[in-house]
Amino acid sequence: MATRNIKLTIAYDGTEYHGWQIQPGFRTIQGVLTEAIGGLLECKVRICGASRTDAGVSALGQAGLIQIDSPIPTENLAKAITDRLPPDMAVVEAAEVPMGFDVIGAVRSKLYRYTIHNGPVRPVLQIRHCWHIPTKLDAAAMAEAAKFLVGTKDFKSFASANDKREDTVRTIFRCDVTGGEQPEGGWVYVDVEGGSFLYNMVRNIVGTLVEIGVGRWQPEKINEILEAKDRRAAGVLAPAAGLCLIRIEY
Amino acid sequence: MATRNIKLTIAYDGTEYHGWQIQPGFRTIQGVLTEAIGGLLECKVRICGASRTDAGVSALGQAGLIQIDSPIPTENLAKAITDRLPPDMAVVEAAEVPMGFDVIGAVRSKLYRYTIHNGPVRPVLQIRHCWHIPTKLDAAAMAEAAKFLVGTKDFKSFASANDKREDTVRTIFRCDVTGGEQPEGGWVYVDVEGGSFLYNMVRNIVGTLVEIGVGRWQPEKINEILEAKDRRAAGVLAPAAGLCLIRIEY
Repeated sequence: MATRNIKLTIAYDGTEYHGWQIQPGFRTIQGVLTEAIGGLLECKVRICGASRTDAGVSALGQAGLIQIDSPIPTENLAKAITDRLPPDMAVVEAAEVPMGFDVIGAVRSKLYRYTIHNGPVRPVLQIRHCWHIPTKLDAAAMAEAAKFLVGTKDFKSFASANDKREDTVRTIFRCDVTGGEQPEGGWVYVDVEGGSFLYNMVRNIVGTLVEIGVGRWQPEKINEILEAKDRRAAGVLAPAAGLCLIRIEY
Repeated sequence: MATRNIKLTIAYDGTEYHGWQIQPGFRTIQGVLTEAIGGLLECKVRICGASRTDAGVSALGQAGLIQIDSPIPTENLAKAITDRLPPDMAVVEAAEVPMGFDVIGAVRSKLYRYTIHNGPVRPVLQIRHCWHIPTKLDAAAMAEAAKFLVGTKDFKSFASANDKREDTVRTIFRCDVTGGEQPEGGWVYVDVEGGSFLYNMVRNIVGTLVEIGVGRWQPEKINEILEAKDRRAAGVLAPAAGLCLIRIEY
């Protein structure tokens, strides 16, 4: 019976992983972490993640919970695990939490950042972590539209059709569009913070904001989309590469 | 007989290439570019690069010269080639230059930037484009040392032993160390601009500056190393991942 409950803060470049969740035959974040921790502690460990990020999605602040018996000091744990991970993954921090801590249920908010490069030439050094859009975006219109998403609302239109959950009401604390001020556009960031999210919700929000950014829709269209409660009313699904889970608050 | 001389400005993430130069059986920048341009123009094209970057080294401003006959407008060429390149490479610009333009001989200066991440946890999203050094660096000492490298000097101590050129005198216009001001260090940049460079010269300079940054040597040690005219007097070879060819001036 494990005696210590440890919360890990995990960062990864998701490009070369088939998402968070262990799947036989695929390289996943959870799978690689489980192996590294198991190798270090010389026992079988189960890691429970706060967020099941999709294939290609990155994280700077994913949270993972492990139960261990090892006497290894908590302050040495992050580095010891990281030393056994590939270069595109790291444990940023390890912290002792009370037994019974619920790494999914105790989440107060999650902050995602979506990165867009708006300019004629694709940014080769950051291409794994952005959506490159050559057409000039109106970032101010996107920022205006983003405000309509803040609050407790039914986000059914922004959920993947594969999300079968009945309750599609979620709370967004903030949705900010910044950057893109230069004449050539440059970097545009969409920061979305919420209590919890439906499947593909952030990427569907970004895809919709981009439709507004290219001038296809007016900012007020957001309200119409929310009203529709139908995925087909919203914009395209933004590519996974641009999405990063920045921080989870407990 | 080709009628147009075109200078291309090329950007790439060098991580997944065996350097610039075509080598049978290896994926190289020159090889992938040659194939893309040949496919577009439906003829065999030879591209001559200004700088033979090593495996793992990236570029934002590599220069390449091609001779073509195609009537394709110069202003469409960059995008047309880029459309045939993998996501980690792009042609930023295409410009008509006079026949006889020497893409190697006419270089006035090359600017390289070397990126170091100085902090306890490796930066997973940028790990392909930096050298991660957990030990705290004294960036001010590195900056002081860098000044001793500016000027026309014999850089034999900073050349790879594989560089068999007799003349090892080169001119460095500037060598600046910036960043690293935060208590945790953060990003440190070494910018080196010079007329031309010996093989591995920038990476040997950076490796030596890092020895000074960690306090193993004093800044004045640079003069002693230059005097020695012996590779073994200088510091370690910095990893290729941190190096980027930023700009070439003609």
